[in-house]
Amino acid sequence: MDIVVQKYGGTSVGSIEKIKFVAKRVINEKKKGNEVVVVVSAMGKTTDNLINMSKEICNNPNKRELDMLLSTGEQMSISLLSMALEAEGYKSISLTGFQAGIKTQGLHTKNKISDIDSEKVKKYLQDEKIVVVAGFQGINEDGDITTLGRGGSDTTAVALAAKLKCPCEIYTDVDGIYSIDPRVYKEAKKIDYISYEEMMEMATLGAGVMDARAVEIGCKYNVPIYVALNNGDIKGTWIKEYDERMEERVITGLTISENNLMITINNVLFKSNNIARIFERLAQSFINIDMISQTAPVNGYVNVSFTASKDDLEIIKDVITKINDEIRGIDVSIELDITKVSVIGIGMMNQSGVTSKVFKIFADNDIEFKQVTTSEISISFAIDSKDKQKAANVLAKELNL
Amino acid sequence: MDIVVQKYGGTSVGSIEKIKFVAKRVINEKKKGNEVVVVVSAMGKTTDNLINMSKEICNNPNKRELDMLLSTGEQMSISLLSMALEAEGYKSISLTGFQAGIKTQGLHTKNKISDIDSEKVKKYLQDEKIVVVAGFQGINEDGDITTLGRGGSDTTAVALAAKLKCPCEIYTDVDGIYSIDPRVYKEAKKIDYISYEEMMEMATLGAGVMDARAVEIGCKYNVPIYVALNNGDIKGTWIKEYDERMEERVITGLTISENNLMITINNVLFKSNNIARIFERLAQSFINIDMISQTAPVNGYVNVSFTASKDDLEIIKDVITKINDEIRGIDVSIELDITKVSVIGIGMMNQSGVTSKVFKIFADNDIEFKQVTTSEISISFAIDSKDKQKAANVLAKELNL
Repeated sequence: MDIVVQKYGGTSVGSIEKIKFVAKRVINEKKKGNEVVVVVSAMGKTTDNLINMSKEICNNPNKRELDMLLSTGEQMSISLLSMALEAEGYKSISLTGFQAGIKTQGLHTKNKISDIDSEKVKKYLQDEKIVVVAGFQGINEDGDITTLGRGGSDTTAVALAAKLKCPCEIYTDVDGIYSIDPRVYKEAKKIDYISYEEMMEMATLGAGVMDARAVEIGCKYNVPIYVALNNGDIKGTWIKEYDERMEERVITGLTISENNLMITINNVLFKSNNIARIFERLAQSFINIDMISQTAPVNGYVNVSFTASKDDLEIIKDVITKINDEIRGIDVSIELDITKVSVIGIGMMNQSGVTSKVFKIFADNDIEFKQVTTSEISISFAIDSKDKQKAANVLAKELNL
Repeated sequence: MDIVVQKYGGTSVGSIEKIKFVAKRVINEKKKGNEVVVVVSAMGKTTDNLINMSKEICNNPNKRELDMLLSTGEQMSISLLSMALEAEGYKSISLTGFQAGIKTQGLHTKNKISDIDSEKVKKYLQDEKIVVVAGFQGINEDGDITTLGRGGSDTTAVALAAKLKCPCEIYTDVDGIYSIDPRVYKEAKKIDYISYEEMMEMATLGAGVMDARAVEIGCKYNVPIYVALNNGDIKGTWIKEYDERMEERVITGLTISENNLMITINNVLFKSNNIARIFERLAQSFINIDMISQTAPVNGYVNVSFTASKDDLEIIKDVITKINDEIRGIDVSIELDITKVSVIGIGMMNQSGVTSKVFKIFADNDIEFKQVTTSEISISFAIDSKDKQKAANVLAKELNL
């Protein structure tokens, strides 16, 4: 029995007509002789509408109850898709998260899958039924309904594929993974194959097609993931183990992350442990710091810069006011329009020339960068947002993305 | 620990504002020192909207999947009500049918409660939580989500009260049980106490306030049921065991059932078993026959009349065409505007005068009746629908309803 897990997101099941269309695609797969498990998200704007209803009750609704509410979205779409399959004469059964054995742990609205009891899914597949599973949801040890947070349906699909030892196809409204977001650089090239590691790095650094968590599970259990358009037969992208087909490539992709700000604190007395105190205060307010750079001490004083999300601006201002009171003589400034540009490629591990090449491209094109950080397979630059488009164009062109 | 089960129907939770209002009422009950279990239906027109969505998929959607779809309606309202209670500072937890241990059996969309595992509900009550349970739904032996059909939320509420050995309060958009529908007879009197048997008879004969099934469970487990308005503090009606307060009353209520038709078949040869053949044909087409009357044979021939629902008109016409072909010489007519008027009262059991009294009222007021049937605690008359209002008025006045 060859099994395949297919996942269709919210826009793919956004109307009754679209659900009928998805049913036809699933039936085509079944006709090829495969057993099919379909994971679906809530229809279109359903989740947003449910969140808005809860906000009418109160600003900060109880999160256990919010999970109870949000999980109805996927329950609606699984039942409608299963009806559509039955109406076409195919045996089908829909399963909520708890019925499909998706066990989770953690905080409500942000649960993680801890295990999947796939016996029921396997039994229905043996009965030749098309199994339609609600994405994004599960059940915790207390028997409460939970949701998995952002990218949750992808995670459900890949985790089910891992358990069923089969590939996972993610159908979405983009036709694959691009070396650079085609909305930023029109001549961006689609990637045929990308390694889990590169995809995780790209997802973390801002490529929105897939959530890093789903890719991480794919990597851990070696699930081949295929990302493609939900409509038509255009060739998509395989996310899989690094292999010879990827070896020729030094740089796989470029991501652009906006919505950043940069804080610079000058004249911090180095010896007094003041740097540690600053980051302790930020951590206490749950502010995620991204890139950090610090100059070498001059006369015992250092300058430090770091980036964070613009969403945290108000909290950051509060913290900085406190720090200004605690540490005398420092000089704090905030820059609000910072873009992070990252170059990613597993081939960079063995090639030292990439960093200098990017430095040269920036210098040749008068692009000033404010910070640099590197990982084994990526380099990131913080630049002024006004240079974003120019940086994307020259890097994409020079690095042949 | 004094427990009370309160049930709020679809109109009572028809908007976020109304849900907040229900939360306030539940909190008032909690403040009295009672532990509260709240059973709610889906918001307003939600169930109708979901059914319409399923009809867009196909005319006759798979019923297991329809149950999966419909059950989301109550899941939404329980989570929103529980959020509203939490927002007011009260500990609350919502439970779907399966979480509340509501076990069911039977056909999808028409399941019956087979048992309730109330351990979880009891545990949460001991933790002083307000427990909000989804009405109308449960889980069957296969782990499928099921729904209970018409009046299902009332059934959930009364069955839970039976298990918790506590009273059940049904809050609705009418302020109690009336001796006769106030829309038909403006001076109708509200009943303070009514026995289970009378209420079941009234529900079966057309009083729409409560479903007969819920009352039957109340009767079996002796659950006191209080029916009252969801808004305000007007005294409602208690449904309970027959007791001395009800004894003075001979007649409790009058129900009016419309949407009936009457078929009369004349000149049926009695000896040839043709009567049996007619009803066999009707039964084969799943037509529910209500009142039946047959004249004594004259020269070996009889006339027979029976009533049925107007909804079955087309099927009845088909059957009659067949019967006309099979049995020669008969003469069939259908009357389309038949109203059934029923007089109900447990006191009638020991009083033979009621039938003759009603006959006299009809005769005095020139109301012709076409059929009569009786049970231990009721008498029903089939009359022409044009006499409906007149019959209601004179019976209500003369019988002091």
